[in-house]
Amino acid sequence: MTDKDDLLSMCKRRGFLWRSAEIYGGEAGFYDYGHLGAKLLDSWERKWKDFFLGLDENYHMIYTNNIMPYDVMEASGHVDHFSDIMIKCQKCESYFRGDHLIEEETGKNAEWMGKEDMKKSIEELNLSCPDCSGEFSEPEDFNMMFEVSLGPTGQKKGFLRPETAQGTYINFRREYRALRKQMPMGLATIGSAFRNEISPRQIVFRKREFLQAELQIFFVPGIHDEKFERKYQKIREMKVNVKREAGDGSREVKLKDMDDLPPFYLYHLGKMYEFYTEVMELSSEEIRFRELSEDEKAFYNKIHFDLEVDFDTLNGWKEVSGLHYRSDYDLKQHQERSNQSLSVSTDDGKKIPHVIELSFGIDRNLWSLLDKGYKDHERTWLNLPKEMAARQVAVFPLVRKDGLPEKSREVFDQLRKDFRVTWEKSGSIGKRYARNDEIGTSYCITVDYDTLEDESVTIRDLKTTEQIRVEIKELNKILKELIHGRKKFKDHLEQKD
Amino acid sequence: MTDKDDLLSMCKRRGFLWRSAEIYGGEAGFYDYGHLGAKLLDSWERKWKDFFLGLDENYHMIYTNNIMPYDVMEASGHVDHFSDIMIKCQKCESYFRGDHLIEEETGKNAEWMGKEDMKKSIEELNLSCPDCSGEFSEPEDFNMMFEVSLGPTGQKKGFLRPETAQGTYINFRREYRALRKQMPMGLATIGSAFRNEISPRQIVFRKREFLQAELQIFFVPGIHDEKFERKYQKIREMKVNVKREAGDGSREVKLKDMDDLPPFYLYHLGKMYEFYTEVMELSSEEIRFRELSEDEKAFYNKIHFDLEVDFDTLNGWKEVSGLHYRSDYDLKQHQERSNQSLSVSTDDGKKIPHVIELSFGIDRNLWSLLDKGYKDHERTWLNLPKEMAARQVAVFPLVRKDGLPEKSREVFDQLRKDFRVTWEKSGSIGKRYARNDEIGTSYCITVDYDTLEDESVTIRDLKTTEQIRVEIKELNKILKELIHGRKKFKDHLEQKD
Repeated sequence: MTDKDDLLSMCKRRGFLWRSAEIYGGEAGFYDYGHLGAKLLDSWERKWKDFFLGLDENYHMIYTNNIMPYDVMEASGHVDHFSDIMIKCQKCESYFRGDHLIEEETGKNAEWMGKEDMKKSIEELNLSCPDCSGEFSEPEDFNMMFEVSLGPTGQKKGFLRPETAQGTYINFRREYRALRKQMPMGLATIGSAFRNEISPRQIVFRKREFLQAELQIFFVPGIHDEKFERKYQKIREMKVNVKREAGDGSREVKLKDMDDLPPFYLYHLGKMYEFYTEVMELSSEEIRFRELSEDEKAFYNKIHFDLEVDFDTLNGWKEVSGLHYRSDYDLKQHQERSNQSLSVSTDDGKKIPHVIELSFGIDRNLWSLLDKGYKDHERTWLNLPKEMAARQVAVFPLVRKDGLPEKSREVFDQLRKDFRVTWEKSGSIGKRYARNDEIGTSYCITVDYDTLEDESVTIRDLKTTEQIRVEIKELNKILKELIHGRKKFKDHLEQKD
Repeated sequence: MTDKDDLLSMCKRRGFLWRSAEIYGGEAGFYDYGHLGAKLLDSWERKWKDFFLGLDENYHMIYTNNIMPYDVMEASGHVDHFSDIMIKCQKCESYFRGDHLIEEETGKNAEWMGKEDMKKSIEELNLSCPDCSGEFSEPEDFNMMFEVSLGPTGQKKGFLRPETAQGTYINFRREYRALRKQMPMGLATIGSAFRNEISPRQIVFRKREFLQAELQIFFVPGIHDEKFERKYQKIREMKVNVKREAGDGSREVKLKDMDDLPPFYLYHLGKMYEFYTEVMELSSEEIRFRELSEDEKAFYNKIHFDLEVDFDTLNGWKEVSGLHYRSDYDLKQHQERSNQSLSVSTDDGKKIPHVIELSFGIDRNLWSLLDKGYKDHERTWLNLPKEMAARQVAVFPLVRKDGLPEKSREVFDQLRKDFRVTWEKSGSIGKRYARNDEIGTSYCITVDYDTLEDESVTIRDLKTTEQIRVEIKELNKILKELIHGRKKFKDHLEQKD
């Protein structure tokens, strides 16, 4: 079991992540990524783009803004409905999310509760302020969007987007034309989103500013879904770990055993699952798709499964991404409000496209890599997918004399164009190994006295600490095979024997 | 000369960029990037990172937030001083930036003016409202930061960062430790910044939300600058186009001829210049470094040159990036306000590091590529650096029958892992060439009837429209040479003859 405090301490000390504005005491709900965290972030985003934009030639990235005009967020329903219910302690004046307090007491989901239900429940459970035991005031709505005022007069309002999705919907028509009216069409964005959480907590899980990677796929059911059907047929035997709303507990089932769901949904569900097992290299015991109940899901989501990870540091299963069939809700709303047609022409007349949304909380996904990867038993090390690791290779001279530093610099220079590589000379070899184990450097290369004779070096494997000796001129080729997975370290060991 | 309206029309029609929230009438000061714009953005950012982080092993990316706590922006001086002076028309109640109105009338910079100077100048010039000729009210300060209120009580304030730099400064101490106290240390960020402009204008030039790429380099003068000195010596013969404050007009000089400036400054100035000429491929007639006058530069900037581009669409020279020697101002301010030591130990005792800042407005840089690259005389085409182009290769079947579409798909599949490539079958070949010329696709590959016999295809060069015929099995290698610049298209032409 990964210990939360140990992992957080490593993250701060070594440069993965920490509370923002630490020197000012740290700002609740905000985290910054240090030089290693930023590398992990960058490589996760790159793999995400490669994987999901690779699903279809007509899936593309676009870039939209953080500040959204008032009209957009009113049309989307966020101005009226994007609220949490908060309760205030009458004594110490602290604010809490009512549903969280009830959940902590009962262990049951309370997110569905309205103000009346919540008031009743608080009375029944006899809840009082966890900080000072004071009595609570009446539950009240709190809109979670950050409001900004645009221009000098202050009369024009905007919001920091609470989800990146709306920026995509308002660009649908322009992109549909620029992409010459091909459907299905996917538009992806990676960027920040903002929610003024009443009580930010659980490390990066309930932040006020967070990163999202989202893919919105536009299509007209019955007209454009043959393509999905064909793609789905190729993966229908795929097994996924699923917890259905009607079932009891999670179980491994084949996609084709969930034939109450449409192919366009099952295809993307399968591909998301593949991203978690093949790219992020999480095991099927550590992840599951959970179907949300009617109470839990937004009214416009016709089908909604969350991908959950079983976290050591966060008491079990938590959502890290979601697959939402949002129907034609969003485009209909924007069409009505903007008075601009957002329909497309089909053989069956004009239709407003439907949307399937693949939505990923990037911070949560990075945390899942750290939580599941951190090993702290006999040896402390971090097991990251090699293609995503913040550092893939470290190069050391055995000692700091006799030309070994210079020779190791040559090796370093030879590797730097192909890998995320570092060169380190200080501390004993053991310390250098330990430092690199802790941050998940996939391979350590040591240049020793023999290197000067035979032009070969040792490669040490993070996972097993086993070593092989290889020629410098073969090094890039061998590391590429090891990192991009066509060859395993043990193949080289066996070859050696 | 590139026509502004023609270029903007192409950008909207083809998927580069447009006003945000177009269907709601467009929001002033906000632009979105479409699928081609987002590719150009991504490749520019990637080349920027490769180039500037490649300058030193101890230069690293970090990731910081858009929302900054109040204390940070107060320490940096932005709460008190980050204002523009606005004047209001008493009749139509429009707001204007006073300095802009004066500049438009006189052609001289007026940014340095205080409220008194401005009032006097407006009276002397007899200025009235450009919209309705009404009289102006007294000039007043307007703070350009967007304020947000954090948490449920609304008592805690934050700001959207007006520059990405401050997020870096407040992480200095943490990174200095994580990076094991090596100096000079460079921390780079790429992200959004926000300024509540009184009158956004000039396309992407004065936006309310914009993108910055910044590199902050921390060092102690006299202690850590031997490294810069060594690097500078290697490029001191380099020529740059410069307009010095004291001189008249811009002229090409060698770095060593500006020896009133310190080596750490000249080294980064030379490298920035190289980025513009070698990576962005702008010519030395199109760019210059302009030294700012005492009136123009911020009081904490000891040395300040802007890199300016001579724009067709924006009436000449405009700043796209800057090189600022900010001294120890920022860390001193944060040390004082946070009450945390931000000094480092040196052989000469404890010192607060100084900062050189390389700051790039990404939107402006992308616009400079579009402005300088767009050609619209006999043929419409877009001349982008091939490594940055939104699309590098397009593959076509000559006709849509006889197996040519299938064969061209094979070629497309062979290319897609190495290049940003598209496959197009609709319209005549001429139309497909024209469409790709317009968006700057570097090479068009055509699969014709001969291909089925001889396994070769034609490559057409964007710049010259000349064509060569190559074998499919050689295609990736040849395109790599052409795009990454080791071989020119004319070399292949000559070879053929």
